[in-house]
Amino acid sequence: MKKKAKGFLNTLKIESVGKHILLEFWGAKGLNSIKIIKKALTQAVDTSGATLLKIELHKFSPQGISGIALIAESHISIHTCPQYQYAAIDIFTCGDKVDPYQAISSLKSTLKPKDIQLLEVKRGVLK
Amino acid sequence: MKKKAKGFLNTLKIESVGKHILLEFWGAKGLNSIKIIKKALTQAVDTSGATLLKIELHKFSPQGISGIALIAESHISIHTCPQYQYAAIDIFTCGDKVDPYQAISSLKSTLKPKDIQLLEVKRGVLK
Repeated sequence: MKKKAKGFLNTLKIESVGKHILLEFWGAKGLNSIKIIKKALTQAVDTSGATLLKIELHKFSPQGISGIALIAESHISIHTCPQYQYAAIDIFTCGDKVDPYQAISSLKSTLKPKDIQLLEVKRGVLK
Repeated sequence: MKKKAKGFLNTLKIESVGKHILLEFWGAKGLNSIKIIKKALTQAVDTSGATLLKIELHKFSPQGISGIALIAESHISIHTCPQYQYAAIDIFTCGDKVDPYQAISSLKSTLKPKDIQLLEVKRGVLK
């Protein structure tokens, strides 16, 4: 019993370089507006406490936007498919100073998705 | 038996907006060189047949580089931790014109990792 408890505690102590969260936003709004996507990214960076290094945005014809915020802690990216009311987002944060879930909360309030799917992956798991 | 075979074929036909591949490179080389990381990204984009829109690179002090290639098909990013000889890479490609595994092959030949871990996620799975 003691051995089992120790094993469980060990799993809680697994150290990794960062967290990478893949988000699917369905039924989201503003997906073809550069202004809204820029706002979504900048507010997500601010809310999470990350340090913004650069934002790149690109609008496709006839529709769709790609946006990437390079942050000191890694990046936040968004690629939109307005034809499906879908956006693929990923939030990659190294270290533990930034809370990526704060960024998600901000993105939700800007893009107002009806449905969300989320996958969190620990990156660079250390021995 | 016939029903089972049909079910199996259906899983092969699942449509998604894109593929997102998360790669861990361990024991890799050139992780603190802007020149090598830029070369790794540009060659990966070229080899995969993707269309480059923009590359952003940032060097951290005392070590570490972040690089993102925004491509018409989504993005390729790399964040390096030379202290662990580790790089976190992700390759996100929408559509089926670009083969992300060609990009991986190119990244391997430039950065020469000793070990690799790979996770492929289908993004935006459609009904």
